[in-house]
Amino acid sequence: MSFFLRINMTEKKTSYVCAPKEYIALGGRGITSKLIHEEVPPDCEPLGLYNKIIIAPGLFSGSKVPCSCRLSIGAKSPLTGGIKESNAGGTAAQRLGRLGIKAIIIEGKTKNKEMYVLRVGSSKAELIREPDILGKDNYEACEIILKKYGKDVSVIIAGPAAEMGYPNSTIALTDAEGIPARQCARGGLGNVMVSRGLKAIIIEGDGKSIEPIDKNSFKMINFDWTKELIKTKKALTDYGTAVLVNLINNLGGLATRNYTSGSFENADKICGESLATLIKKRGGHPTHGCHKGCPIRCSNIYVDETGKNITSSLEFETIALMGSNLGISDLDVIAQIDRFCDDFGMDTIELGGTLGVAMEAGIINFGNASNVFNLLAQIRHGTILGRLLGQGTEISGKTFGVERIPTVKGQCIAAYDPRALKGTGVTYATSPMGGDHTAGNCLPGRVGYREETQDKLGNIGDMYQVEISEDLQVMTTVFDVMGLCILIGPSDETMHKIGKLISAFIGVNHTKEDVINLGKEILNLEFDFNQKAGIINNNLPEFFYTEPLPPTGSSFSIDTKNLKLFRS
Amino acid sequence: MSFFLRINMTEKKTSYVCAPKEYIALGGRGITSKLIHEEVPPDCEPLGLYNKIIIAPGLFSGSKVPCSCRLSIGAKSPLTGGIKESNAGGTAAQRLGRLGIKAIIIEGKTKNKEMYVLRVGSSKAELIREPDILGKDNYEACEIILKKYGKDVSVIIAGPAAEMGYPNSTIALTDAEGIPARQCARGGLGNVMVSRGLKAIIIEGDGKSIEPIDKNSFKMINFDWTKELIKTKKALTDYGTAVLVNLINNLGGLATRNYTSGSFENADKICGESLATLIKKRGGHPTHGCHKGCPIRCSNIYVDETGKNITSSLEFETIALMGSNLGISDLDVIAQIDRFCDDFGMDTIELGGTLGVAMEAGIINFGNASNVFNLLAQIRHGTILGRLLGQGTEISGKTFGVERIPTVKGQCIAAYDPRALKGTGVTYATSPMGGDHTAGNCLPGRVGYREETQDKLGNIGDMYQVEISEDLQVMTTVFDVMGLCILIGPSDETMHKIGKLISAFIGVNHTKEDVINLGKEILNLEFDFNQKAGIINNNLPEFFYTEPLPPTGSSFSIDTKNLKLFRS
Repeated sequence: MSFFLRINMTEKKTSYVCAPKEYIALGGRGITSKLIHEEVPPDCEPLGLYNKIIIAPGLFSGSKVPCSCRLSIGAKSPLTGGIKESNAGGTAAQRLGRLGIKAIIIEGKTKNKEMYVLRVGSSKAELIREPDILGKDNYEACEIILKKYGKDVSVIIAGPAAEMGYPNSTIALTDAEGIPARQCARGGLGNVMVSRGLKAIIIEGDGKSIEPIDKNSFKMINFDWTKELIKTKKALTDYGTAVLVNLINNLGGLATRNYTSGSFENADKICGESLATLIKKRGGHPTHGCHKGCPIRCSNIYVDETGKNITSSLEFETIALMGSNLGISDLDVIAQIDRFCDDFGMDTIELGGTLGVAMEAGIINFGNASNVFNLLAQIRHGTILGRLLGQGTEISGKTFGVERIPTVKGQCIAAYDPRALKGTGVTYATSPMGGDHTAGNCLPGRVGYREETQDKLGNIGDMYQVEISEDLQVMTTVFDVMGLCILIGPSDETMHKIGKLISAFIGVNHTKEDVINLGKEILNLEFDFNQKAGIINNNLPEFFYTEPLPPTGSSFSIDTKNLKLFRS
Repeated sequence: MSFFLRINMTEKKTSYVCAPKEYIALGGRGITSKLIHEEVPPDCEPLGLYNKIIIAPGLFSGSKVPCSCRLSIGAKSPLTGGIKESNAGGTAAQRLGRLGIKAIIIEGKTKNKEMYVLRVGSSKAELIREPDILGKDNYEACEIILKKYGKDVSVIIAGPAAEMGYPNSTIALTDAEGIPARQCARGGLGNVMVSRGLKAIIIEGDGKSIEPIDKNSFKMINFDWTKELIKTKKALTDYGTAVLVNLINNLGGLATRNYTSGSFENADKICGESLATLIKKRGGHPTHGCHKGCPIRCSNIYVDETGKNITSSLEFETIALMGSNLGISDLDVIAQIDRFCDDFGMDTIELGGTLGVAMEAGIINFGNASNVFNLLAQIRHGTILGRLLGQGTEISGKTFGVERIPTVKGQCIAAYDPRALKGTGVTYATSPMGGDHTAGNCLPGRVGYREETQDKLGNIGDMYQVEISEDLQVMTTVFDVMGLCILIGPSDETMHKIGKLISAFIGVNHTKEDVINLGKEILNLEFDFNQKAGIINNNLPEFFYTEPLPPTGSSFSIDTKNLKLFRS
């Protein structure tokens, strides 16, 4: 049996209800976006009474499908004003899947900012007070929770950044080690969660791995797929997503000093290879899984010179936005900033962009790490400047009077410069998620499912970038519905494979086309919500069109203004 | 002959072109909104290359119609993201009208933030450099200009606030005394003007009063109307718009301490009667015209104890937002803040709302004038806090973590609390201009042109407030097209009168219905622009619905979400 767990924060009531049948074949972003589309007024205030936070494990989460650990969290975003879904790994998704909880729906808000914690068991949920964790950094708060509730719980927690009302605040998920290092980071969802009066969710108890209808087929597909992933994703296993630093730098698309260059002279100091070497030398883990049983294990555990755990995982986007984008080439500094963000509950991409515009404005200098730590302290303590930086890149940049602000729909883009990675630029510009690379990242080598894109293996230049972006947005949505990690790699073949998996899993007969249509359907709901919320501008910031990017001199020239994605 | 004067700031070219015939029967907001609708991409960046500033005198400006002095300035607003028109008195509109210049269109932007001044003569316009006025406060800058170009010029100038990139910056117009005290204040138009690279416009030369087609009728209607205005607007002549302080306070709708009350215990200290008495006692002018020949003369010249000119004019909205809204009951303090705003080029309404949320957040205390002056100094000097306050009420309030933010579409509402003045609340919520009382202020006594509203003379309560607001939005638009001051009072009868005046003026046969349809037509262009820009939310802030307003306990309950104004 599958349940929705509804939490009314106004009434402080919890109830398990059967999941409506139209949600049974959905998971993750499919559920968050469909529920938001149905239940949240598009014109409501993101922090007001009528917004909701929806938490949903992927359709495959809790089964044995490889990399099916993603937990989706959705709401109307205080950053973009539109619909948002953000997902992360960790243990919560699989546990919720095994418990048969398809979604936790948090609605209403408490009076006088009273703050609660939700305890979720297999058949019981209750709102409790846990004053000891309020205001605490995430690592410490999770230690307190694990000490009290046992190590075998999953925690979903909004950090102090959310409690301070910052719209760039995250919701953290604990990993297999109980560390709150996996972040539903984009769109300020922590801000929305805390505005309901909910600080954290503790998931206790567990269930059995979900049994598919057609066990044999399911097992076989999974077995083959797992083997294939181990073989083909070796670079990610060895170096993590940081393997992209050199690649993107060589393309001339690595965000450098607030997007004034696509190439960083010290890229070699912060690249994946250097990262892995350093971690290994210090006795950390260059290879680590964000959840148990992952065949790719792109995560890492970064340790300092004494071997002490600093952060997990140091990813490409963080390295670039806190490194090249700030003119910083010291991995220890970047790791410390990352730890701060995980601990405080703040989005590294948004904060990296924010620090970039602050540097451009001369608030502090590019490359000056100690000044960065001063700003982090100000953010933590809520000085005026700190609070301003907590509002994110767009508001900070505008307030500083900076013209080069790398945001779309109010949200900072990731470190892939759209003048070099044009398909990713199309995604930034047109995705209902705002400037978010995870909505369809057109990395070199990734192509669409449409035939005409298939020979664009390099995926560089202007040709077919709109089509490739559209296809990848659809395929990424499918991944997010299934709870699959995007690092599996969206492709025509994976869509085919997912069709077979769904068929074996729930006893339908899904082709690749069905899977693609499912992605389109969810995206259309998201576009529809945004349309009604007035979030319809499909441009990149003007400077990407007008300022050629050194060293290649490339600029963004694809017309994304009037794209009508998927509507036809 | 009527001209458009086009100024291309990118090319630094000026050209006089014949006004297209569809613009001949239009003026003011009719021209600014129609041109923006036709020439500005709704999704452009307000400070980017594609926005334009349009300046247009009213249709009657330059004729002998009473109170026809309003100059409209329009652009896509950096505060609301939508279309904006803001108008003010002073001498520029009548002079432009007499010169036959129907619009000045400023497009493109200079490179490297080079700043120019536009000199406009009867047949020649040129862009010049005037480095001496850059960074200077408006009063001093205008003194310099008048000294150099003679007293008989009209100046249109963006102040230091605009140069500092503040989106709550105004464009000031000089009055008959050469004082830059008349402000096109709402929507951050100064910010847009300076972003083009234009600091000021100096209008030299003059022409003859525009001759109507049917001189006799025109003269007779004007004569009667002028006589009537002198007789019926005596309270405005004697006390200015400050006469509203007691009236609105008695209704329980006077913005007090950031909209936590509708009644201010010291209203009698800041009311129109006290203001007039004080000014008289000090030898100032409680009655003054913002332009020559005004029969109402609602303006005043506020002087200090030594008789020195402090500001002109002290208006209701400023008195309320800097007075009751901040818990301040000293007219000298309010006048000093008003002078700061005129001099620096900042909107008093937006700044009053901003200081209100700053006080609510505890940045400074309610009622503490010296702390207010400290904040003004910070704004002037561009400290981080000052720059933040310069962003306006919404961004400041959000950054401070305040929930009670009195803005609509990013713009602060005026001091009429919508829980008491519900028709004005409907206007705030639905006007394409955002939270702007000048778009259709449903004061007690004002009703619509529709019959069903005619017996609602009190205009209090919930009944027919949507209809009254709609009608007043239409009639106000008509006033703004004609260049007429709204204090004439929009009514069924004035629409009739305007119809006759237009007929005599340009030789058509316009009925009241034609005039109303003209207002609707312009409003529809504005709604259409906003729709395409995604500015479609027609709500008030949530707290107006959920927090009853002391002392009456009234809340806003009119559903404005799905209003489809005028489209049918």
